[in-house]
Amino acid sequence: MMDTPLVLTSFLKRAETYFGHKKIISRTSETMIHRIPYKDFVVRTKKLGAVLEGFGLQRGMKIGSFAWNHHRHLEAYFAVPCSGAVLHMVNIRLSPEHLIYIINHAEDEILLVDDNLLPLIESIYSELKTVRAVIVMGDDVDVSTSDIPSIYSYEDLLAEAREDFEFPDDLDEKLPAGMCYTSATTGFPKGVVYTHRSLVLHAISLGLTEAFGLGERDVSMPVVPMFHVNAWGLPFAGVNYGCTQVLPGPNFTPKILIDLIESEKVTLTAGVPTIWLGMLQELEKSEVPRDISSVRTIVSGGSASPKGLIKAFEQKYNVPFIVGYGMTETSPIVSVSNYTSEMDDWDYEDKLEARSTQGMTVSLIETRIINENGEVPNDGKTMGELTIRGPWIADSYYKDERTADAFRDGWLYTGDIAVRTPQGFIKITDRTKDLIKSGGEWISSVDLENGLMTHDAVFEAAVIAMPHPKWQERPLACVVTHKEIEDEAALKAELLAYLEKDFAKWWLPDDIVFLKEIPKTSVGKFLKAKLRDDLGEILK
Amino acid sequence: MMDTPLVLTSFLKRAETYFGHKKIISRTSETMIHRIPYKDFVVRTKKLGAVLEGFGLQRGMKIGSFAWNHHRHLEAYFAVPCSGAVLHMVNIRLSPEHLIYIINHAEDEILLVDDNLLPLIESIYSELKTVRAVIVMGDDVDVSTSDIPSIYSYEDLLAEAREDFEFPDDLDEKLPAGMCYTSATTGFPKGVVYTHRSLVLHAISLGLTEAFGLGERDVSMPVVPMFHVNAWGLPFAGVNYGCTQVLPGPNFTPKILIDLIESEKVTLTAGVPTIWLGMLQELEKSEVPRDISSVRTIVSGGSASPKGLIKAFEQKYNVPFIVGYGMTETSPIVSVSNYTSEMDDWDYEDKLEARSTQGMTVSLIETRIINENGEVPNDGKTMGELTIRGPWIADSYYKDERTADAFRDGWLYTGDIAVRTPQGFIKITDRTKDLIKSGGEWISSVDLENGLMTHDAVFEAAVIAMPHPKWQERPLACVVTHKEIEDEAALKAELLAYLEKDFAKWWLPDDIVFLKEIPKTSVGKFLKAKLRDDLGEILK
Repeated sequence: MMDTPLVLTSFLKRAETYFGHKKIISRTSETMIHRIPYKDFVVRTKKLGAVLEGFGLQRGMKIGSFAWNHHRHLEAYFAVPCSGAVLHMVNIRLSPEHLIYIINHAEDEILLVDDNLLPLIESIYSELKTVRAVIVMGDDVDVSTSDIPSIYSYEDLLAEAREDFEFPDDLDEKLPAGMCYTSATTGFPKGVVYTHRSLVLHAISLGLTEAFGLGERDVSMPVVPMFHVNAWGLPFAGVNYGCTQVLPGPNFTPKILIDLIESEKVTLTAGVPTIWLGMLQELEKSEVPRDISSVRTIVSGGSASPKGLIKAFEQKYNVPFIVGYGMTETSPIVSVSNYTSEMDDWDYEDKLEARSTQGMTVSLIETRIINENGEVPNDGKTMGELTIRGPWIADSYYKDERTADAFRDGWLYTGDIAVRTPQGFIKITDRTKDLIKSGGEWISSVDLENGLMTHDAVFEAAVIAMPHPKWQERPLACVVTHKEIEDEAALKAELLAYLEKDFAKWWLPDDIVFLKEIPKTSVGKFLKAKLRDDLGEILK
Repeated sequence: MMDTPLVLTSFLKRAETYFGHKKIISRTSETMIHRIPYKDFVVRTKKLGAVLEGFGLQRGMKIGSFAWNHHRHLEAYFAVPCSGAVLHMVNIRLSPEHLIYIINHAEDEILLVDDNLLPLIESIYSELKTVRAVIVMGDDVDVSTSDIPSIYSYEDLLAEAREDFEFPDDLDEKLPAGMCYTSATTGFPKGVVYTHRSLVLHAISLGLTEAFGLGERDVSMPVVPMFHVNAWGLPFAGVNYGCTQVLPGPNFTPKILIDLIESEKVTLTAGVPTIWLGMLQELEKSEVPRDISSVRTIVSGGSASPKGLIKAFEQKYNVPFIVGYGMTETSPIVSVSNYTSEMDDWDYEDKLEARSTQGMTVSLIETRIINENGEVPNDGKTMGELTIRGPWIADSYYKDERTADAFRDGWLYTGDIAVRTPQGFIKITDRTKDLIKSGGEWISSVDLENGLMTHDAVFEAAVIAMPHPKWQERPLACVVTHKEIEDEAALKAELLAYLEKDFAKWWLPDDIVFLKEIPKTSVGKFLKAKLRDDLGEILK
């Protein structure tokens, strides 16, 4: 068989050959929407390759991007790796301290920065040790006023770039192509390096019926940011499969997302549960009827999706809502909660139970849930730590001693505690570090959170472990309500009574505190460590 | 990223973990249908691994199979490569001379033979130089009467095999896993070796929306034989995706296939056009109404599918009928004629035109149509030779000097002449060796054949080049009619007039001869060389 490497250039060539007429719809500001055909996208991507060549690009060199979801970022997604360099997708929501750390740690030499994010980079620029040029992406960029010495307008560079540039055709599939950093519980973020092979295989898997079934007919809108785990691979897969792509740009609101769904007839969209909670509220409160019927699949991931949320989209709006599971270390898609044929006869409530799990492991990826007795049975009850291996699973953190904590015996130890259902679906019950161990027994904070979030009054809920003299740890619930609370004590009693219907008495939180918001990580996950520290102070 | 190899053992493990309850339905004789769950299939496959280990199996050793489509053959499909050996799927329809050649050339050491095919092997056994054991597959096998010295019953061996055998977990993805021989225009068949990597990637691609979209919900019935290019990858993909598999066994008729579709609710089936012509005739003539509405896709390939055939299934029976293109050298799937979104507004006749082409190249595979001016434009007119490269395309023939003819500059030269439509679809117009060159201009015999086959009276048509004193070559049409002909001259005139509507005058065949059947290769392709020789004699 031919030794044809699995490289991203094959995706670009496919878009060029077959999908030149298909569109990328890109919202770059409050007022600007670009519609460029793939034909132009490929020309611009090659020009960006020529520009980078002009900056002395070498194989393996790191180029950082600091940008929202738009066509220019998509051009960088291809031009950088197809040139043999590595695109470091910098998470714009990190603290300045962490930003400085990861850009220096990755040794980024060039930064591609959105014009509206430039002030952030300017404020830390003096601390960046390896960056030698900044290229500003935007519709109308003036770089003359910046203090950064070597700064350029992306569009000006493209306008001057030569037209006859071609990407190298000798890339090895194991060449690094991208990298993302993931927040750690303590300390600086940890880097994960993706290869051409891993990005290609991962993106290919998104076209499988068993995963997202992405194809040429789809209008794909990744709401998940392109600075967050390759936007779950959707931008890469979209180009390969010739999907129409809708990139929602900066500062979008639920209303803007619904507008885009309506106008572009989006068929598949993906993001964290917070996005869908917001969209649901917008749909409910909108005075004019909104039409999201073009959507054939919403993919939700990053944290647990409350059943009430799934049910609302599926039952009220008739939009299939699936849960995906993954993490930065896994590119990210590991499993998807598609219904299997045996579920066709199930009641909706049972189907909903399956839907809200992390689903079935996709092809080529292997998952194992293990505890001290080995692999757990498929009983939906026995908990263990989820471990993963496969061709798009990291084997290390980039130049980081913490590698040894997570990568052992050829497996990634996720730190997620899970059970496996009789159907083989993974159900995450908790994080190892957030587990509540009450009297030697585990309590799943996620189950309690999901229970609380099905109550009409509750917008968000986080359950954390608080130290307890007798039981070692006991659960404490932190709740954000939809409306202002009239009688806190009454609501507290009501919520506890509500939980009591579904949970053992000893699982019930010892207390419920009402908060204005739950602190979250830069990628929208509950920051339970912070919550615990804050509340520890308050409750003293 | 982890260096996880792409090996077939991952497919087997997936079936074991998630699809133990799903069924393989296997017709092994006129009267016997087996229904075994994947759980048992995996146990039996491991037992076969243990049996082969007992025969001194080594990495890279060749094991031949000589069998129809059934669960035992499927067990061999996995047990042999997962043990590190190579499954040589011997084409049972070859001549004894060619059988002897390929079994000796591949150096098969063990043969897995269907009981009803054993006489064929017995008749050539004395000529086989490397075979040291024959294992007979069947429901009720008695090997005591055979003259073959080292002969065993498959079921007896499995019954005695140890239960605790596990396949090795250190297979390299570039290890050879399977091989098939392809008939040559002249000389002995040529061998193609598949690797774990090529078979895995090819099978994965069958799950893509853009290809067959195979998934757990499918009931897949490969009618294409398992001794013909991996049965187009369906048995491998079916195990990985957890499809219900229906394997139609020996000597099936169109009626039997329709019975299986009805009883098992087949959703996807694949085979050569001759199968579908036969099924269509059976549907038309059946006195009781037949129900094939469970079928969501018929895949047709191996030779051109007449438009009338496609139209009948799509319009009359409401079953989507897609064309796939490939060859032994390409594992085989290269392209598929799924409708793209731009065709949604087209008239059915235009869609049918697209449907009957070889379609769009699937992901990871690259096709190029080239003539003396380089790559042909997407005009649907300019002809060139189709060349292919990709991770499941062969780079050589096994120990064969004819490698240099077909594999050049990293591409497979198919010998097929094609055009590319504005949508990027490949349309095969002829074989290089069957092209009709009339007065320096090319005439497509395939176009003429398709034209003739749309006429109500015509069952099959083959058009060949005959030598001509003035024009060098001129087309001659060979036609098989549905019914007996009353007036040959009148029908000839009618067919020529019929063609004249769609073809330039100089394309029209100089003559039409009526035959009882068109000679075909062992895999159902027109044997034009033989036709030309026979007719050369007749017409002298």
